[in-house]
Amino acid sequence: MQSDNKTAAILVIGDEILSGRTREGNAHHLAGVLNAVGIDLKEIRVVADEKPLIIEAIHALDSSVGGRYDLLFTSGGIGPTHDDVTADAVAEAFGVGIEMNDEALAAMRARWEQRGVAVTGNRLRMARIPLGAELIPNKFSAAPGFHIGQTYVMAGVPEVFRAMVDAVLPTLPVGRAPFSESLDLDRGESDVADDLKAVADSYADLSLGSYPWHRDGSYGTMLVIRGLDGARVAAAMAELKQRIGA
Amino acid sequence: MQSDNKTAAILVIGDEILSGRTREGNAHHLAGVLNAVGIDLKEIRVVADEKPLIIEAIHALDSSVGGRYDLLFTSGGIGPTHDDVTADAVAEAFGVGIEMNDEALAAMRARWEQRGVAVTGNRLRMARIPLGAELIPNKFSAAPGFHIGQTYVMAGVPEVFRAMVDAVLPTLPVGRAPFSESLDLDRGESDVADDLKAVADSYADLSLGSYPWHRDGSYGTMLVIRGLDGARVAAAMAELKQRIGA
Repeated sequence: MQSDNKTAAILVIGDEILSGRTREGNAHHLAGVLNAVGIDLKEIRVVADEKPLIIEAIHALDSSVGGRYDLLFTSGGIGPTHDDVTADAVAEAFGVGIEMNDEALAAMRARWEQRGVAVTGNRLRMARIPLGAELIPNKFSAAPGFHIGQTYVMAGVPEVFRAMVDAVLPTLPVGRAPFSESLDLDRGESDVADDLKAVADSYADLSLGSYPWHRDGSYGTMLVIRGLDGARVAAAMAELKQRIGA
Repeated sequence: MQSDNKTAAILVIGDEILSGRTREGNAHHLAGVLNAVGIDLKEIRVVADEKPLIIEAIHALDSSVGGRYDLLFTSGGIGPTHDDVTADAVAEAFGVGIEMNDEALAAMRARWEQRGVAVTGNRLRMARIPLGAELIPNKFSAAPGFHIGQTYVMAGVPEVFRAMVDAVLPTLPVGRAPFSESLDLDRGESDVADDLKAVADSYADLSLGSYPWHRDGSYGTMLVIRGLDGARVAAAMAELKQRIGA
């Protein structure tokens, strides 16, 4: 699919995903959001909670530090415990220091005092923010995410991640959202492969995908046509339906 | 966590994941399987159905072609349609040709003739296998996966992917599966961060993780201790429980 939209990557940081304990859902949520606002998600990576791995991934993915994509969104590793190393890794990746952030600290103190929680020890780790970063607030937890370079650093807890996505969304360089039409067939994808290819060859500006499924002993294929020009998508789908007799 | 276990990566190939249409589940399934047999999953990547991206990822991840990990497992892009480019990309990544594979073709013909399906056109694409690769059979579909270098190429359809994982599992260089103990607390992770760090410092051979959760307006923290020595894991958990009064 041809597009002038901005490109993006998601970096998920978390041992619990790699060990199979937790099924990742934040990247799936953000993928849908980015698609809807016309930002082209090009890659997702999941790495462990280890600073060198996180730094390397940021350098590979964020164009502001030599990486490949216009925008990078991270999920996970910004909590209060010893295994939360994302903020330090991001500071190193951008070559800046990391310090207690007054704005973050004030917000966290206010919230904790309200709840009668002592503001001590490792709890304060969550107010450590790379120098030059802007905070990403959220309504669920006192600890903010932050934005530096083209990287948006957000929490791993799904509710908090979503709240942070909501907070940054109005600031993102949105593009043209693709139009999409789909057709669910109770036929194997081999049956329609030749026709699908013929239509794909005629509509090089569109993206034609074929997704076989198996459910309860039956099977079929979901055909999806995506593109920035709704009329072209509709025309391609009409031609495809005519060809395959659907 | 210290380990002599083999390392692995998973490469998921599929536009439908990046567009947010489909929530990825194959990597989650395989992550659990690898953990159970003592293979350390270190990274997951998701890239689009584009040959250059797939080739680059294989070169980055498979140690037999200069990449980082002992084993690489791919999911997706080996069907019969024009957007299935994984087999060609793998052949290029390994610098080998790709040809109609007699063994794959015979198996596919036998299955299709049984079902009265014509063996023509793009359907035959699924029998194109990189030279030197070994087939990975599966009980769900006629089209095989394959294994070349340290890369295991498998289907994206979940049932087929799982059948292929089952087929390759007995051939993998299994290691020592980690022991794991977990503790679910109805307290925020800030409350236990200091104690968790103290225990982590005393047990540098173990991995201590802290996973906050929010559900139905309440919140809590799941603490997980993992390691290859079950007695050490148990001792660390006992010390942690004593410290936090759980």
